[in-house]
Amino acid sequence: MSGIAEVARRAGVSKSTASRALTGAGYVSDETRRRVQQAAADLGYRPSTSAVGLATGRTRSIGVLLPYVNRWFFAEALEGVQEALHERGLDLTLYAARPDTATRRHVFRQFLTRKGFDGLIAIGLEPQDGEVERLLAMRIPVVGVVGTSDAISVVAIDDEHASRRATELLVDLGHRDIVFLGGGASAAHVDRLRMSGYSASMTDAALTGHIRFVPSDVTLPGGYAAAVDLLGDARRRPTAIVAVCDEVAIGAIIAARRLGIRVPSELSVVGIDDHEYAAMFSLTTLRQVPREQGAAAVELLQRHLHDREMAPTAVRLQATLVMRSSTAPPLSAESTVQIDMRERPAWSQ
Amino acid sequence: MSGIAEVARRAGVSKSTASRALTGAGYVSDETRRRVQQAAADLGYRPSTSAVGLATGRTRSIGVLLPYVNRWFFAEALEGVQEALHERGLDLTLYAARPDTATRRHVFRQFLTRKGFDGLIAIGLEPQDGEVERLLAMRIPVVGVVGTSDAISVVAIDDEHASRRATELLVDLGHRDIVFLGGGASAAHVDRLRMSGYSASMTDAALTGHIRFVPSDVTLPGGYAAAVDLLGDARRRPTAIVAVCDEVAIGAIIAARRLGIRVPSELSVVGIDDHEYAAMFSLTTLRQVPREQGAAAVELLQRHLHDREMAPTAVRLQATLVMRSSTAPPLSAESTVQIDMRERPAWSQ
Repeated sequence: MSGIAEVARRAGVSKSTASRALTGAGYVSDETRRRVQQAAADLGYRPSTSAVGLATGRTRSIGVLLPYVNRWFFAEALEGVQEALHERGLDLTLYAARPDTATRRHVFRQFLTRKGFDGLIAIGLEPQDGEVERLLAMRIPVVGVVGTSDAISVVAIDDEHASRRATELLVDLGHRDIVFLGGGASAAHVDRLRMSGYSASMTDAALTGHIRFVPSDVTLPGGYAAAVDLLGDARRRPTAIVAVCDEVAIGAIIAARRLGIRVPSELSVVGIDDHEYAAMFSLTTLRQVPREQGAAAVELLQRHLHDREMAPTAVRLQATLVMRSSTAPPLSAESTVQIDMRERPAWSQ
Repeated sequence: MSGIAEVARRAGVSKSTASRALTGAGYVSDETRRRVQQAAADLGYRPSTSAVGLATGRTRSIGVLLPYVNRWFFAEALEGVQEALHERGLDLTLYAARPDTATRRHVFRQFLTRKGFDGLIAIGLEPQDGEVERLLAMRIPVVGVVGTSDAISVVAIDDEHASRRATELLVDLGHRDIVFLGGGASAAHVDRLRMSGYSASMTDAALTGHIRFVPSDVTLPGGYAAAVDLLGDARRRPTAIVAVCDEVAIGAIIAARRLGIRVPSELSVVGIDDHEYAAMFSLTTLRQVPREQGAAAVELLQRHLHDREMAPTAVRLQATLVMRSSTAPPLSAESTVQIDMRERPAWSQ
């Protein structure tokens, strides 16, 4: 079996560069990484993980902590992280554990302290529960995807902007009675940001008196159940819904169809996500790509691994409007309807 | 920091038992494992992963290979595996890579050969592509969840029985024109088993001439698109559908509603899974619990780790019928309808 020296020679780089390229610890250019990986493959070079780990303190593995696997955002972000790590020759050690469970506490007590990885990506961490502090105490680089504190680097969309844009679209169509579906006292950090974007936009439109949050589980069946309640009572029924996410929006559309309420002529619905089911329900939504956020988190983590003194950084991606056909002016509108056509729908491009 | 000797003394077990309990390698009773873990927690004992790996060849980590994270079955099974591994103090190294991709080949060439784990759980492995042979060549225990060969141990439901049961239910209601939605030449192993259960049941009912497979992507939007085609043409429209899985079944129900076809009076639909959305669509289905299959795979893997000579074993779980309201006799039925009430629906218990 060939050694790292042969790999370095074949790739035309130094031993330490070859080692960095293969372990993923420290910066090398994509081109160099590819060349070294090719050389390693040609020579059948296989480093022993245990030996590398012991010698350098580097495990060639990155931990990923997240609350759910079986939810669109988390699954997509996880796949994005996985792909980006594999491109860099790094393993992924998974810690899936729901918040406020014994398993979650167990993960923090028993697993994370083992230091079986060089860095950690935490998806959907809630800042208020002290977990961030415990992660920082591990003294390895940590990068968050959505919902984290200022103390660590984070990749996310500008959630407040997204729900503001969704609300404005409805206001511009002439709606006044616009409900935010999926808001509540126990909402997650990211959902609270979306709630404030809605509030701010309603306030800007002088519709403060119409602000109304309706709680819902942040799932498709949750949105369905909450919408059946909300829409079933004609006196409470709004003309439009801003949903906390597409799953809730789609649940609301299914509920409306069941109740014989036509979308969009009797009810407009806007979501946030561009979930894989959104097109099927002709849902107008603010598009984010969790897979790209996962890849961006790996990129950011690599910078932290290279430069241990780097200050926490926030990478904010902008959600883009995808116009489909779940929105229309309200039936009652006398309105001067204004639609901003500068922002072209994604499907028209 | 305390050593393994102190942990063993406090737990009242031998050093080797304490080590087994903490590494997850080798059998210890649940009660002993709990006692040793408690003692380790009380004493703040933290073994060094690298040192353990090098000394014993045991990494305290299990690899999980699967094609998709963002699909109900795979996500649920993965969460089940994760939970069962954490209970045993074992890490999970994730290899998510779609079939027939460069990433997948890269995983086999570069990652799996590193031996960064003691055993592997492969979810949804397709036996025909030679991957099983390559896994066996690694000489570590491998357990499959669905869709694998006789060469390795596997946990799955009896898929043929499940689709047979679904078809029989429709035949008993008086349906003759029953389509299997989601079958095709390129179907995965598990889906082909379901196709043969349907064929066998149709043949038993002397409905061989009515056997009809309609291809569909095995996703909710895929089922929707295929059903729009199938149901849109009144001459081709069946009175009942056996769907390859609930996501396809739900897609078909949504398509039917869109086309103004009433379920179940004009169209009966049966699925397989009991997906998290099934109840919302009142879908009658054959229930499986992928989370339990994941846990059973960990159990089986542990037996293989303990006994390296153990022969491959197949654990077949039985799907149970969950009656909701997506099935009814066909409108045209002159029939002597027979419903077997011995099998009580899950929700009535």
